[in-house]
Amino acid sequence: MTTIPVSIPDLTFQAQETREAARDLAELPTETRNQALEAIAQALAAAAPEILAANAEDCRRAEQEGLAKALYGRLKLDAVKLEGAIAGVRDVAKLADPLGSVQIHRELDDGLILKRITCPLGVLGVIFESRPDALVQIATLAIRSGNGVILKGGREAVRSCEALTCAIHAGLQQVGLNPAVVRLLTTRQETLALLNLDSYVDLIIPRGSNVFVRFVQQNTRIPVLGHADGICHLYIDQAADVQKAIALTVDAKTSYPSACNTIETLLVHRAIAPHVLPQLADALQTHAVELRGDAATQALLSRHGYTLQQATEEDWKTEYSDLILSIKQVDSVEGAIAHINTYGSRHTDGIITEDDATALAFMNRVDAAGVFHNCSTRFADGFRYGFGAEVGISTQKMPPRGPVGMEGLVTYKYWVTGDDHISASYTGPNARSFTHRDLG
Amino acid sequence: MTTIPVSIPDLTFQAQETREAARDLAELPTETRNQALEAIAQALAAAAPEILAANAEDCRRAEQEGLAKALYGRLKLDAVKLEGAIAGVRDVAKLADPLGSVQIHRELDDGLILKRITCPLGVLGVIFESRPDALVQIATLAIRSGNGVILKGGREAVRSCEALTCAIHAGLQQVGLNPAVVRLLTTRQETLALLNLDSYVDLIIPRGSNVFVRFVQQNTRIPVLGHADGICHLYIDQAADVQKAIALTVDAKTSYPSACNTIETLLVHRAIAPHVLPQLADALQTHAVELRGDAATQALLSRHGYTLQQATEEDWKTEYSDLILSIKQVDSVEGAIAHINTYGSRHTDGIITEDDATALAFMNRVDAAGVFHNCSTRFADGFRYGFGAEVGISTQKMPPRGPVGMEGLVTYKYWVTGDDHISASYTGPNARSFTHRDLG
Repeated sequence: MTTIPVSIPDLTFQAQETREAARDLAELPTETRNQALEAIAQALAAAAPEILAANAEDCRRAEQEGLAKALYGRLKLDAVKLEGAIAGVRDVAKLADPLGSVQIHRELDDGLILKRITCPLGVLGVIFESRPDALVQIATLAIRSGNGVILKGGREAVRSCEALTCAIHAGLQQVGLNPAVVRLLTTRQETLALLNLDSYVDLIIPRGSNVFVRFVQQNTRIPVLGHADGICHLYIDQAADVQKAIALTVDAKTSYPSACNTIETLLVHRAIAPHVLPQLADALQTHAVELRGDAATQALLSRHGYTLQQATEEDWKTEYSDLILSIKQVDSVEGAIAHINTYGSRHTDGIITEDDATALAFMNRVDAAGVFHNCSTRFADGFRYGFGAEVGISTQKMPPRGPVGMEGLVTYKYWVTGDDHISASYTGPNARSFTHRDLG
Repeated sequence: MTTIPVSIPDLTFQAQETREAARDLAELPTETRNQALEAIAQALAAAAPEILAANAEDCRRAEQEGLAKALYGRLKLDAVKLEGAIAGVRDVAKLADPLGSVQIHRELDDGLILKRITCPLGVLGVIFESRPDALVQIATLAIRSGNGVILKGGREAVRSCEALTCAIHAGLQQVGLNPAVVRLLTTRQETLALLNLDSYVDLIIPRGSNVFVRFVQQNTRIPVLGHADGICHLYIDQAADVQKAIALTVDAKTSYPSACNTIETLLVHRAIAPHVLPQLADALQTHAVELRGDAATQALLSRHGYTLQQATEEDWKTEYSDLILSIKQVDSVEGAIAHINTYGSRHTDGIITEDDATALAFMNRVDAAGVFHNCSTRFADGFRYGFGAEVGISTQKMPPRGPVGMEGLVTYKYWVTGDDHISASYTGPNARSFTHRDLG
């Protein structure tokens, strides 16, 4: 059980080695990759005392250094969390194999056959903060999908990450696989070097704060999967059911305030505002939510005894990640759509209405990965969508968009097999035609 | 019939307008988008005299300015080419509608339904050199797929592009659509401004020289679809049929030397080299192909009267786009794979062998959008793959990869509809479970 040490001058060489190891991994049958996952699950269980001890030491130092409470909670890995992570490894083994799927099978001409077959991306670079169990999940997804992975955990979790990687390497070696498939980096200098390895790393997955994700996006030419902001909206339409609207808003704001799928701004049709906002303010007050409002909302709620801070342009652009909600009244669904398309981050936005035509207009015209009708935005999540495990949530327009499962870790190749077919046969006066016949 | 003039200070505003117009377009049914294409086809036919006259003037000036012959050939738009472009508009109308396709339809819980539905990307920025007929093809693909498009043609084709855009606008107006869906830029300053419009443009498609594509890739944060280099390889394995190998190599090198899917380097197994290279050199000589070789190939062919320039490291990295072929001998299929994965541009690489196991290893391990067995690399093309029309060929790893049809112009959204479903119901001691049942 040894981790592979990494020093900067060697990083390129080591990334190449991970790439080669990943190519071997990609050719293995599903069963072998799943055997590796089972061996990793067992190795993690066997190494539990060392892993928990390493994490306890990380936590002790974090406390000394006064790590923020939220980060500390993410850092802490107890026996229950570790068991959950180990169960997660076995769950990933149960997912459908994303490799070798034939997406297109087409005869181009007699004996000239095109197939589009899924294959791994190659090497993933994953940079995450604090949560050591994220390392297990990502390494497992990478191995299952035939990818190599270079991991960089937070500085505060370095002992935990080393202990976990050590166990993962032991599991890989147990079934005769090259441990170079999973590599751990430990310094910030290595992170910067990783972002420059565009010849060897095919996808960067940053998991951390908005500022951190934005830093990664701006400092690499490697494709980045993820999102910086999660500025989600809920729009209460004129034709909303008031009680539904209150329950959904409370859930979408308060059930996990720091989650990316939590709403930051509530849009309310002017005609229903007097019927819904006072009750809603009462409900949100019991959850200690600070409200900010546009002038109309300030005026309306002041008549019910609430003094709201004015919501400014800055509020519409802000992901509070906290128990704060800005409220704006609009004249129509078009007004809501325009606000969302201007200030939203293309993550998840919902409408509450009993009018299906209005809902359809909203869902068609709002430009977001998720458009929700009469349900909480908090369902925007890979597990809840039934993807088994989530790599991250992407707010880019090009696929993969929204919550991404293993789908985001595979690509495809076009395989063309012929029998001496040359292109010149298909041009000129006696040109052959393509048959373009889809096969089974 | 008027084109919409664009000046730099207005570009942001105009891109916004194109975005809004595209949102309206996206909501139209297939038939309406197809009616627009038919109206455009008719308008182009009606405006043929003006279009051909504008092109003749572009050509006259290009001749005066001594435009390179290859570019001049691309610039020239005669009646036959224009008819072909008009037929292409009607062909695109026949393609399956890429919008509104339900990729996932899943019950998450009773009454909580997830759908993943394809939708347009939004606004495309397309920058192309010389070929005015490319404008027609791209505008047609954009309209069919519900996208707005901002086009920038080559300076030398400005009159042709204006005349074509004018006809396209007339066609759009004929069926009551906002002509702002298709917008033409004419100056280099506007191109630079376009690359900065990441809030309004969702995908940049550059069509031009390698240097130009690389410039675009390095000067925008908008996703870029395309490829800079097309460094394709053919590997003649020990177990190749010599006559096949010669015919395929000649086709892959000579049928269209400047195409991106033409090979630049031939790899030959050392054991078969004496049997294939002398005959191959004879065959390539009749096509005036200049050969460059590694030391072994120089020595071998010199015994047959050929004096080859030494192929250097630089040769392995070069897309000649010309009748030049570099040749290298390798000891095994692994040697060929290693060379391709080091120097290739992930475009298209082929193997010639009668040994299926060797072919499989090659196709699994070569990292390219296209891996070909016993056929010419020249088949790597959207039309030949049966995609109907091609947006471009992508050499990125993430999908869309390889030849891209309309698929590259659409994305998807997750639609979630519920009936007052809140996330809090799914946590805690009495948590509901998700059903995750795929529907119809």
